[in-house]
Amino acid sequence: VQGTAHNNGGGTRVMIIGGDGYCGWATALHLSARGYAVCIVDNLVRRNYDLQLGLDTLTPIASAHDRVRKWGEVSGKHIDLQVGDICDWEFLSQAFTSFKPDAVVHFGEQRSAPYSMIDRQHAVYTQSNNVLGTINVLYAIKELNPDCHLVKLGTMGEYGTPNIDIEEGYITITHNGRTDTLPYPKQAGSFYHLSKVHDSHNMHFAARAWKLPITDLNQGVVYGVRTEETMADKALINRYDYDAIFGTALNRFVVQAAVGHPLTVYGKGGQTRGFLDIRDTVRCIQIAIDNPANKGEMRVFNQFTEMWSVNDLARIVTTEGSKLGLNVKTINIPNPRVEAEEHYYNAKNTKLQDLGLVPNLLGDAIVDSLLEFAIEYKDRVRPELIKPAVDWRKSPVTVATGTAAVVKQ
Amino acid sequence: VQGTAHNNGGGTRVMIIGGDGYCGWATALHLSARGYAVCIVDNLVRRNYDLQLGLDTLTPIASAHDRVRKWGEVSGKHIDLQVGDICDWEFLSQAFTSFKPDAVVHFGEQRSAPYSMIDRQHAVYTQSNNVLGTINVLYAIKELNPDCHLVKLGTMGEYGTPNIDIEEGYITITHNGRTDTLPYPKQAGSFYHLSKVHDSHNMHFAARAWKLPITDLNQGVVYGVRTEETMADKALINRYDYDAIFGTALNRFVVQAAVGHPLTVYGKGGQTRGFLDIRDTVRCIQIAIDNPANKGEMRVFNQFTEMWSVNDLARIVTTEGSKLGLNVKTINIPNPRVEAEEHYYNAKNTKLQDLGLVPNLLGDAIVDSLLEFAIEYKDRVRPELIKPAVDWRKSPVTVATGTAAVVKQ
Ligand SMILES: NC(=O)c1ccc[n+]([C@@H]2O[C@H](COP(=O)([O-])OP(=O)(O)OC[C@H]3O[C@@H](n4cnc5c(N)ncnc54)[C@H](O)[C@@H]3O)[C@@H](O)[C@H]2O)c1
Ligand SMILES: NC(=O)c1ccc[n+]([C@@H]2O[C@H](COP(=O)([O-])OP(=O)(O)OC[C@H]3O[C@@H](n4cnc5c(N)ncnc54)[C@H](O)[C@@H]3O)[C@@H](O)[C@H]2O)c1
Repeated sequence: VQGTAHNNGGGTRVMIIGGDGYCGWATALHLSARGYAVCIVDNLVRRNYDLQLGLDTLTPIASAHDRVRKWGEVSGKHIDLQVGDICDWEFLSQAFTSFKPDAVVHFGEQRSAPYSMIDRQHAVYTQSNNVLGTINVLYAIKELNPDCHLVKLGTMGEYGTPNIDIEEGYITITHNGRTDTLPYPKQAGSFYHLSKVHDSHNMHFAARAWKLPITDLNQGVVYGVRTEETMADKALINRYDYDAIFGTALNRFVVQAAVGHPLTVYGKGGQTRGFLDIRDTVRCIQIAIDNPANKGEMRVFNQFTEMWSVNDLARIVTTEGSKLGLNVKTINIPNPRVEAEEHYYNAKNTKLQDLGLVPNLLGDAIVDSLLEFAIEYKDRVRPELIKPAVDWRKSPVTVATGTAAVVKQ
Repeated sequence: VQGTAHNNGGGTRVMIIGGDGYCGWATALHLSARGYAVCIVDNLVRRNYDLQLGLDTLTPIASAHDRVRKWGEVSGKHIDLQVGDICDWEFLSQAFTSFKPDAVVHFGEQRSAPYSMIDRQHAVYTQSNNVLGTINVLYAIKELNPDCHLVKLGTMGEYGTPNIDIEEGYITITHNGRTDTLPYPKQAGSFYHLSKVHDSHNMHFAARAWKLPITDLNQGVVYGVRTEETMADKALINRYDYDAIFGTALNRFVVQAAVGHPLTVYGKGGQTRGFLDIRDTVRCIQIAIDNPANKGEMRVFNQFTEMWSVNDLARIVTTEGSKLGLNVKTINIPNPRVEAEEHYYNAKNTKLQDLGLVPNLLGDAIVDSLLEFAIEYKDRVRPELIKPAVDWRKSPVTVATGTAAVVKQ
């Protein structure tokens, strides 16, 4: 079966930056199970955001050290855990020199759009952490390991919602009788999404100037909690974010359905995006590692499997909820974001499928399993965390604490 | 005469960030002379780069405080000087609150491509200083003065050298039967140029999300030392950079001609760029201020008047030099940069001319006047500073000091 063969990693050394996070943890175990030598690099700041803002994952997760240790017991495989900040060059260069990666998978960024829009400080933090961290990773590869393949997570949100088809990273333009293939124009909608646009430009330059092999994965919204490995033990379970800062629309809707709260659609609900199952995220990463970019190439894949609007998601959760006996209602609330609520959206996503990805589609099974988690951990749900917390237009001038920036409604 | 009428500023309050620099100083005096109320904001870090790297302007410049004081004596006009770093929010927000600008002209960035390529630290410094500083300026306007017009200096280098015509900021693309006007694709060639690409994306978002009025000026390479006001007194003279880090090709060639050194053309010399006279820079800024962008609009002007290749510049300096009795030779040296040396280049620049700019062209007069400066200050020339100092491909891993990073040849 695709992506499940054991030991096809053949000892390939993969550094996973951000390996304690949602996508990173699932990927680390997926690769470790398949014979890749895995090193997790993470400063654990994601856990700190939750502490700062009073948020928590629905599913109780073990500490980074405990879950790596548990994985060793369960699988007999060792994962190296290096706790540190990639913005700290001394730490990063030592991690590189000691681990000697063949490939680096870079998930290690602040990844919430609302978090980046809390106020000026959070905007500056997000771009500083993400853009400068990625520059350090580029220099680490250039100076210490120039054949190392960088697999970097971008987002479909870099493209915005143009009125033409979205291609995979580049577009061929004929203009005044001449033709060139150029980076696809970017119109991101938050300081977080913009940080990824900046990364893409910096990486494109580094590939050209220094002949590095780079894959930029413009990932859609990831859903799901279960992967084979993270379900192997309670201490390996992945995080499930449902709050208004880190939770995505589908996760929020599922939790709202489970606790009997109407699904809160932002604005008209016509906002359409690409989505994928966490089980496909881990396989896409493996595919990228197994089929590396050429030196000097910055290859871009759009990493999603299906397109849905917010209204589509609400409809699916309503239907699946009713099968489980839940009476699900939907309400439209003012959109805290600045975004088009009705727009054309047609994004290409054939490159990963050409390399062998067979998608897991968003069907009954996955929504059921999400609903099961939400029902199982119902007592941990704090419904007040689901209300929009950050308004794109209204962040305060100065805030003493992160929570003070959260708009009370 | 265009741009010379006095008191047409009518008291409009203009904050000039980077007003102690080359373009900023000339602009500050130009606007002050014409009845605008001017405040210079600058942390004087440009003077510090020279100290760090052992460089100096050809023309001896007075201290920031002295030249502002001298301007008061010469013109009877007061310029407010606020020394501080725009990355320091406490300083910037206080400067905004006390001065209450109607327009902000933002020159205040690290602007040398070679400086940004010295090594990792200089790359990180450049993007951090420029991108985070500009985010602070955007928040200052949004939070403190949302009607204030931001006039931001970008660079023609953001576009790179595409094989199609370069438009002014946006391009209309027809693709698979649909059409949209999107930001022009960017392919910048150094961490400095990339920082401007990032600024442009951040500003485009801020204009859309917060309805700010923004003008992004993609400026070409500026040449010339003389403006009416900076020539009014020795203490007002502008800087003239000729070293390999901060000097541009034309400035370097002129100094080489003056001291009898062959002009050093990087590679084949077919690299073509947009250029303009410093006397046009100051008028472009005035035109932008007098014709502000609409709220919510990020308007982009390509701010240059002529296109020249490096070989064109060498030829012009050779011809003009020989008229002054100089025997000028040219040599081709290995290109320290990663860039196309023969390429298509056709960039549009009609928008500023539609608003009234009448260009000063690069003719005998201007090259003569540059040569006169170079001959006058010949004793201050240190020819070893003109040799390429930074190689795009070779920066060292770690450096104790900036100078240690400079490639010795
Ligand atoms: N989850 C999604 O739906 C989604 C969608 C598109 C793209 N992505 C991208 O995929 C990546 C992973 O997303 P996720 O949902 O797993 O996020 P996450 O926040 O759960 O994981 C990111 C991890 O990176 C770590 N990190 C952040 N800054 C770091 C630094 N400076 N040094 C070291 N570690 C650092 C955090 O501690 C965290 O464990 C991100 O880059 C994100 O932008 C995610
Ligand atoms: N000179 C050119 O040919 C040219 C061409 C295209 C674009 N530009 C752009 O025009 C602007 C001005 O260029 P220049 O040649 O006058 O550069 P310059 O270095 O002479 O001036 C920039 C000024 O900004 C100040 N500064 C830098 N960072 C600052 C910070 N964080 N806080 C406060 N002040 C800060 C410096 O001290 C300096 O005085 C720059 O943004 C540059 O990128 C210049």
